[in-house]
Amino acid sequence: MKKFSALSSFYKLKKLAENPIDLTKKGILTPQRIEEMFSEEVGLKFFYATERMDEQTLSALFELAKETEAVHKMRSMQAGEIVNVIERYESEKRPALHTAMRDFFEEKEETQRAKEAASLAYKELEKLKNFLQKIETKKRFTHLVQIGIGGSDLGPRAVYYALEAYKRPMRKVSFISNVDPDDGAQVLSEVELENTLFVVVSKSGRTLETQTNEEFVIQKLKAKNLDPKNQIIAVTGQGSPMDDPSKYLASFYIWDYVGGRYSTASMVGAVTLAFALGMDQFLDFLRGASKMDKLAKIPDPKRNLPLLSALLGIWNRNFLLHPTCAVIPYSQALHRFPAHLQQLDMESNGKRIDKEGNPVNFSTGPIIWGEPGTNGQHSFYQSLHQGTDIAPIEMVGFKESQYGKDLEVQGTSSQEKLLSNLIAQSIAFALGEKNPNPNKVCAGNRPNHILFAEKLTPYSLGLILSYYEHKVAFQGFIWNINSFDQEGVQLGKTLASKMIDQFIQKKKQKTIDERAFPLGAAFLKKIFS
Amino acid sequence: MKKFSALSSFYKLKKLAENPIDLTKKGILTPQRIEEMFSEEVGLKFFYATERMDEQTLSALFELAKETEAVHKMRSMQAGEIVNVIERYESEKRPALHTAMRDFFEEKEETQRAKEAASLAYKELEKLKNFLQKIETKKRFTHLVQIGIGGSDLGPRAVYYALEAYKRPMRKVSFISNVDPDDGAQVLSEVELENTLFVVVSKSGRTLETQTNEEFVIQKLKAKNLDPKNQIIAVTGQGSPMDDPSKYLASFYIWDYVGGRYSTASMVGAVTLAFALGMDQFLDFLRGASKMDKLAKIPDPKRNLPLLSALLGIWNRNFLLHPTCAVIPYSQALHRFPAHLQQLDMESNGKRIDKEGNPVNFSTGPIIWGEPGTNGQHSFYQSLHQGTDIAPIEMVGFKESQYGKDLEVQGTSSQEKLLSNLIAQSIAFALGEKNPNPNKVCAGNRPNHILFAEKLTPYSLGLILSYYEHKVAFQGFIWNINSFDQEGVQLGKTLASKMIDQFIQKKKQKTIDERAFPLGAAFLKKIFS
Repeated sequence: MKKFSALSSFYKLKKLAENPIDLTKKGILTPQRIEEMFSEEVGLKFFYATERMDEQTLSALFELAKETEAVHKMRSMQAGEIVNVIERYESEKRPALHTAMRDFFEEKEETQRAKEAASLAYKELEKLKNFLQKIETKKRFTHLVQIGIGGSDLGPRAVYYALEAYKRPMRKVSFISNVDPDDGAQVLSEVELENTLFVVVSKSGRTLETQTNEEFVIQKLKAKNLDPKNQIIAVTGQGSPMDDPSKYLASFYIWDYVGGRYSTASMVGAVTLAFALGMDQFLDFLRGASKMDKLAKIPDPKRNLPLLSALLGIWNRNFLLHPTCAVIPYSQALHRFPAHLQQLDMESNGKRIDKEGNPVNFSTGPIIWGEPGTNGQHSFYQSLHQGTDIAPIEMVGFKESQYGKDLEVQGTSSQEKLLSNLIAQSIAFALGEKNPNPNKVCAGNRPNHILFAEKLTPYSLGLILSYYEHKVAFQGFIWNINSFDQEGVQLGKTLASKMIDQFIQKKKQKTIDERAFPLGAAFLKKIFS
Repeated sequence: MKKFSALSSFYKLKKLAENPIDLTKKGILTPQRIEEMFSEEVGLKFFYATERMDEQTLSALFELAKETEAVHKMRSMQAGEIVNVIERYESEKRPALHTAMRDFFEEKEETQRAKEAASLAYKELEKLKNFLQKIETKKRFTHLVQIGIGGSDLGPRAVYYALEAYKRPMRKVSFISNVDPDDGAQVLSEVELENTLFVVVSKSGRTLETQTNEEFVIQKLKAKNLDPKNQIIAVTGQGSPMDDPSKYLASFYIWDYVGGRYSTASMVGAVTLAFALGMDQFLDFLRGASKMDKLAKIPDPKRNLPLLSALLGIWNRNFLLHPTCAVIPYSQALHRFPAHLQQLDMESNGKRIDKEGNPVNFSTGPIIWGEPGTNGQHSFYQSLHQGTDIAPIEMVGFKESQYGKDLEVQGTSSQEKLLSNLIAQSIAFALGEKNPNPNKVCAGNRPNHILFAEKLTPYSLGLILSYYEHKVAFQGFIWNINSFDQEGVQLGKTLASKMIDQFIQKKKQKTIDERAFPLGAAFLKKIFS
C-alpha cells in the first residue's frame, strides 16, 4: 500500500490547497452552489456548499478514496476481516465487528465471521428482552445506574440524553464513571437504592474506575441490607474476572472484536437504553445504525455520506491544515454527543504510526470539541468568527423538535428560530463580513457543513451514530492507520499504578518512598507538605 | 505601546523556542526541578516543572510581563479605568469591573469608580439576602430554574455543579439556555411548577433565547393558573425592557461594566447560587474570588499565579505554536467548568485586531476544550499521548474529596487513585516512552501543569474562577487586545434575523422569498423539499 503522502491524489490536493476558493468573493457562494453541493440519502440531508473547496477538489478527493480503496476496506471491516492490526509488530490482530451488533435487518453480511458475530449479538438481545420482561412484571425498578468509563459511558450517556424525550414513564437513568469518589457519592445521593438497578460495564472486567465504583455500590447496598446479587447486572467479556453469573442478577456478553468506543449498539448500551426506551425503540436505533452501515459500503462518494464527510475532513486537516474540528449540534438533547465523538475520533485516529509501524509524515485525527448551538453562539463563536486560527465546523440539525411543545413568539416558533440560527451561522462562517470598523470585520472562509434530519428519533440517531463511526473509520483507512487500538493509554496506566504503590507505601510506612518512583515522590512531598 | 511581536522579549522567546528543552532526556525532569518549578499562594499549589521551558525561558517571559506592563494594566482594570475600548474606532468604551462585584473584604480598591461599583453590588447582595430570608419563611420554593444563555448560563451552571455537594437540603437547581424548544420542554418535564422559582437573566433584556424561554415558562405557569409575577425573578440592566419590577417577584441589577462571561460573582450567579448554597457559602465563594483579585495585582510573577499561568500559556501559544489548550479537572464536580472556561477564554481573546484597531500578526486566544479526568484518560488521552499534534494541558486537582464518602479498595481510597492518575499523567505527558514496538512509543514533551487545592469548596472555587478570569485578562493585556468585547458575534445575529424573516414570510405567503436573502432561501428550499 502506497503511503498517503505518496499518492498521486495527495499531490493534486496539495497543489489545489495552495489556492483554495475564496468563499467571501462575490459569485462564489451562490444559491446554485448550495443546490448542487448537497446530498440526500436514507433521510439525511448533507449541505456542504460552505466547505472551502470546488468541484476540482472534490474530484481529487474522490480519486483519493479510490487510490486508498476506502470503500473496499469498509466492506472488509464489515465482513469481519482482521483490520485491527499493525504488521510486523505485536498488536491486537482482530476484526472490528461493531456493525455485526446491529446486522439484523436487511442485506445482511454473509461471511462466516460476520454472521457468527451477529448471531451471538442477537442471542444477547433476546436474553435482554426476556430479562426486561421479567423485571417489567415485578415493577420494582424505576431507576438504572450505569457504571462504566470511556466507551462504556460516553456513547450510552450521549444516546440516553439524546433520546430522553422518548423514555418510558417512570424510568430514569444515571451514570457513574469517574474514579473520583464524589462522582459515585453525588449520583447515589439522588438515588433510592431499593428501586435501582445497576449495570456494571467493563469488557476486561479489570477497569480500575469501574471496579472501584462497583465496590462502592455493593457496600452501599449492603449497608441498607440489600443483596447486590438482586440488583447488579454485569456486561463483560467471556472469561473476564466479572464473568461470574452467580454474582449478578443478569450477565450479558461483549466481545473483543467490538472496541469500547464503537460499542454503544452492543450490550454496553443496550441494557440501559432498552430499559429506558423499551425494546422496540432500541431496535429502531439499531435499525438506523444498520441502515447507515449499508450506505457506507456503496462506492459513489456523493451518496456514501460518511465517506464524503471523511474526505472533506481530510481536505480540512491535511491540505488546509486545520488542527481541530468543532462539532455543533443544533439540538440541546445532543449536549453530550460531542464528548462521545471526541472519544470516537481522537482515540481512533490520534495515532502516530501507520499500519506497517512506520511513523506518519502527515497529520492524523484532529482535536474534536464542541457544544450545542445556539449556546455556542453566546460562547466560543466569537473566536470562530474573529479568532486568528480557523476551526472547521460540523453542524447537525433537525427540522422538527422532539417534544413538539413549542411557542410562537414574534411570528416564529422556537424551532424556527433555532433553524434560522443554524442556517445563518453556516452562511456567516463562509461569507464573513467586510466593514470599515476593523473590529466588525469577520474574515469568513470558515469551512463548515450541515448534516440534517427530519427529527431526532431513535432511528435517526442510529443513522447519525453510525455515520460518525464510519467517517472516522474511513479517515483511518485513507491514512492507513489502525483506528481500532489505543496503545497510547498504557503509559499513563503504568505510571498510575506506580503512584498507587507510593500511596500504599506512604500509608504503611508513614514515609514517601523516593527510590521506587522519584518523580512521583517529588509531587507527593509537595502535596503533603 | 509597542506591538507584542516587536518587543525585545518577543525576539528572545522566539530564539529560545528554536531549541526548547527536551523533557524526555535523562536528567531534565528531576525531583529537584519539580521542587523548584513550584509556587504556593493563598492555599493553591502550582506545579509547572512539566511545562516545556527552563529558567532562561521563564526570565524572558517575566521580561515580557514587564515590557507589556501587565500588572499595571491589571491594577488599572481593577481600579475601574476604561479597558474595554478600541482606540480611534467606535467601541464599547467601558471599564471592566467584575472584580468590584466581590470587593467587600480586605484591601479594597479606593478609586471612586471601583468603590461606587462595589457599593452598588453590595446593595444588590443585601436585597438578595432579604429576599431569600423572605422566601425562606414561606418555605414554598424547593426548586429554582435559571433561564439565561452564554455568560448568564455557563458560569453559574459550572459553579452550581461544582458545589452541589454543599447545597442546602431540599434545594435543587436546573437551567434552560438554548432556543431549542426541547431544552425548556425537557427541563420543565422534571419540574413541579408550584414549587419552582424562575430566574431570568439578560443584561440587555433582549436576548432572543432568554426572552423566548421566559415566554414559554410564563405560558406554562398561566396554564396551571399560577401567576408568573409570584414566581419569576429578573436579573437585568437598568433601563432594559426587562427592568420593570412590577412584572416580577423580585428584580436585581447588573451593569454594563461587567461582561457576561465575567459575571458569575454578580447577581447573574448570585441569586441561583445563594438560593442553593445559602448566603454564607456564597459569600465564601466571593471571598475566594476577591482574594485572588488581590494576588493578581502583585508584581512578582512567581507569586502572581494567574500571571504565571498566562505567561506559560503565551509560551505554548506564540512560541511553541500550539493552537489549543486542554483543561482537565481531576474532579467530576467540575464537569462543566471547561465549558465555562471555553467561553471565558475564547470569547475574550479570540480576536484579530489589537486595541489600536490593527490586525495582529500573531496568534491570539487558543481553542479551549476538555473533560474531567480520569474520564478523559479513557477517551481522548490516546491522541494527547500519541497524536501527531501537541495540545498543552492544564490540570486541576484536589487533595480531598468533597463528600468524604470514600472506600479503600486494594489498599487505596478512590481519592488516592484519582490523585495517582493526575500525577502519573502529568509525568507521562512530559516524559513519554521509548519502546522497540513503535506502537508503544509516546513522544513525550507534552507541556502541562497542575493547579492544586486542598479541597473543592466555595472558597477555593472562588479562587480558581478568579484565577482563570485574570489569566485570560493578562494574556489580553500582553497581546494588547480587547478581552472585554465580542463584536464577532454580531454577523451571525444579523443573518439569523434575516432567516427569521424568511420563516415569517414563508408562513404568511406560503412561499420562500428568494430575493430578500437568496442564500438563506436556497437552504430553506432544500429543507422543505
